[in-house]
Amino acid sequence: MTTTHPSVAAFGASAGELTVGGVPLGRLAARVGSTPFFAYDRSLITRRVELLRRTLPERIQLGYAVKANPIPAVVQHLSGLVDALDVASAGELAIALDTPTPPTRISFAGPGKTAAELRQAVAAGVLVELESATEATRVVAAGEELGLRPRVAVRVNPDFAVKGSGMRMGGGPQQFGVDAEQVPDLLDQLAAADVEVAGFHVFAGSQNLGAEIIGQAQRSTADLVLRLAEHLDRVTYVNLGGGFGIPYFPKDTPLDLGHVGEVLAEIVVDRLTPALPDAAVHLELGRYLVGEAGVYVTRVVDRKVSRGRTYLVVDGGMHHQLAASGNFGQVIRRNYPLAVGHRVLDGGNDDVEQVTVVGCLCTPLDLLGDDVALPRADIDDLVVIFQAGAYGLTASPTAFLGHPAPAEVLV
Amino acid sequence: MTTTHPSVAAFGASAGELTVGGVPLGRLAARVGSTPFFAYDRSLITRRVELLRRTLPERIQLGYAVKANPIPAVVQHLSGLVDALDVASAGELAIALDTPTPPTRISFAGPGKTAAELRQAVAAGVLVELESATEATRVVAAGEELGLRPRVAVRVNPDFAVKGSGMRMGGGPQQFGVDAEQVPDLLDQLAAADVEVAGFHVFAGSQNLGAEIIGQAQRSTADLVLRLAEHLDRVTYVNLGGGFGIPYFPKDTPLDLGHVGEVLAEIVVDRLTPALPDAAVHLELGRYLVGEAGVYVTRVVDRKVSRGRTYLVVDGGMHHQLAASGNFGQVIRRNYPLAVGHRVLDGGNDDVEQVTVVGCLCTPLDLLGDDVALPRADIDDLVVIFQAGAYGLTASPTAFLGHPAPAEVLV
Repeated sequence: MTTTHPSVAAFGASAGELTVGGVPLGRLAARVGSTPFFAYDRSLITRRVELLRRTLPERIQLGYAVKANPIPAVVQHLSGLVDALDVASAGELAIALDTPTPPTRISFAGPGKTAAELRQAVAAGVLVELESATEATRVVAAGEELGLRPRVAVRVNPDFAVKGSGMRMGGGPQQFGVDAEQVPDLLDQLAAADVEVAGFHVFAGSQNLGAEIIGQAQRSTADLVLRLAEHLDRVTYVNLGGGFGIPYFPKDTPLDLGHVGEVLAEIVVDRLTPALPDAAVHLELGRYLVGEAGVYVTRVVDRKVSRGRTYLVVDGGMHHQLAASGNFGQVIRRNYPLAVGHRVLDGGNDDVEQVTVVGCLCTPLDLLGDDVALPRADIDDLVVIFQAGAYGLTASPTAFLGHPAPAEVLV
Repeated sequence: MTTTHPSVAAFGASAGELTVGGVPLGRLAARVGSTPFFAYDRSLITRRVELLRRTLPERIQLGYAVKANPIPAVVQHLSGLVDALDVASAGELAIALDTPTPPTRISFAGPGKTAAELRQAVAAGVLVELESATEATRVVAAGEELGLRPRVAVRVNPDFAVKGSGMRMGGGPQQFGVDAEQVPDLLDQLAAADVEVAGFHVFAGSQNLGAEIIGQAQRSTADLVLRLAEHLDRVTYVNLGGGFGIPYFPKDTPLDLGHVGEVLAEIVVDRLTPALPDAAVHLELGRYLVGEAGVYVTRVVDRKVSRGRTYLVVDGGMHHQLAASGNFGQVIRRNYPLAVGHRVLDGGNDDVEQVTVVGCLCTPLDLLGDDVALPRADIDDLVVIFQAGAYGLTASPTAFLGHPAPAEVLV
């Protein structure tokens, strides 16, 4: 039964009906006025940050990777909860600058930053994470032109790789960052220019559920940062990356955050604080902060039986939630957790059926639930897809087949 | 060498520089004013329609599946060349209705059509292709409410399957269409209502490069249509589907259109015309009409060497051309044809290097060319990705990471 997935329980229910931010789903749908829509639960985001604050060492600064969910309401909410915002484009930069988070607490990373984007970042006064010597040259030029002293960090492609990540972004050859062994030369180049070099960012991979692996990566990251720090007079910024995963599928075990916290305490207290007393030590989290706080809510438009298989055709689909269709970087397609909105607590055997949930797009790729057990749903019932808070709408081909864009609400 | 791909040769070149619609790429980029952009070659689309007209029997009516590329300029251009437009949403319907193509020559197919969409379609006077009994009920209700007699066809899920399609959309259980064996009952239901039932649409799969397979599917489709036609007094519409593929990869052999034309001639002349003299026989093509007529043009933002591997980082990426990154329904990632814009005719060995072309998104998924041989390209050079005319921008997560939308031009 999909109803046992922990993400379903986290939202809660009222008389068997899913609630989001305490509002029963049917009422929320009426408030939104149309389906499909994304709903993000404000209190779940808040509780996730609280959990991190309780579990991680006090000195850890939490950054939110805006790319995970850039809607302004969510970014504004997180601005009040976390210590920093991390952006990956000029578009995300604009959203971050609209929050109360000061520019000095916004960092800008990502390969292929253009001269124009870097000029915007320098003018904004944010921390630019350099991915290459070319970017360093561009930042220096922008600073000279604007009469501003840019503040930069070096994003480092580590000399180790992290196993078990959903996506590996460090180790071996990479488009991300500057190879660790090339960093001293880049620092020499920067020392001759009018820039403040704050420190280093090492990001090794994302969507990792293995606390041991993350812990080992953090240890290796600290080693690397301490080695590189010998080439800088004063380090004020260390970004240890993040990559904390969330459980999407029944066999996924949630991350053991306690273990990660213990390793980080050891790294921060025993190693980074003595060696780099002025450094703000950042973790950068996106999916882990918001991924489990979002649902994608669709309505059943048609119910049909084709050669023994029952289909629920909903008014949403892969154009809004591509990852749930298994077409966003996944090698093997697996079902995201699904539920019928007004019957999430049906745990029993009555009236449960095997159905295939498909979106409204005219393509066989638009598959949201392949042969899943759900309480019987009829036309006009709401079908909910969980784990939709990160890399949902913005990671989806919204214009595909010309359907309207969905609403997004923070509740 | 990627420069040998036939799609590159089709565009032509001037002094080694790719041309689109006869305009050298550098000049076109200056005209567009920014990169990245999509450029579609008007004459290549025209020539593709001419090829089909020459090769297919005269009685075949050509329909354009707007979903393949819905930008108004392309749809307007094709409106003047083909006989019909096929849409898959109310959004695409609006684009089609803006063309000179009369509503009677517009068809609307796709699962999960809502009551509101069907009401729009009935009011517009287009042909509604019914995917289920539910849709039939909705169309009848819309007709009664609007005082209009809807014109419908039944989309049939065939009782055969087509092998070798990129995507199978017929045979076995499907969300698409009405199972062939259920069609007589649906026709009985419709006979009692005030609707005109024009005929049938059978669509078995897409992106098929096997002419023999397509021919066999067309034969089976004709058999099925003739069986089902016994339940209708008069058939005025037969849509045989399409699914003609285009070659994306070096080992792909272009479709043998001549063979398909011969089979269609036999089907139309020997079978459909005698039995259904009033029927307009349609083929519905999307990708085959426009897919090879488009390029995605990016500019090199950074060039870096990481541990022995040379990366070209371009200002575009998977947010605009998801399929080229291998993340849109593909099981195995393969490189789309790529070229350096001003050196497409470099066929030799001088100054060719192995590079990895990546987009500007901060994710390892954003891979456009994995270890490809290209003439040396530097920062500010243009890198072109071919086969971008269909399922390109609209099938991509444009908002992902907050970069600007690209321009699209028809040249």
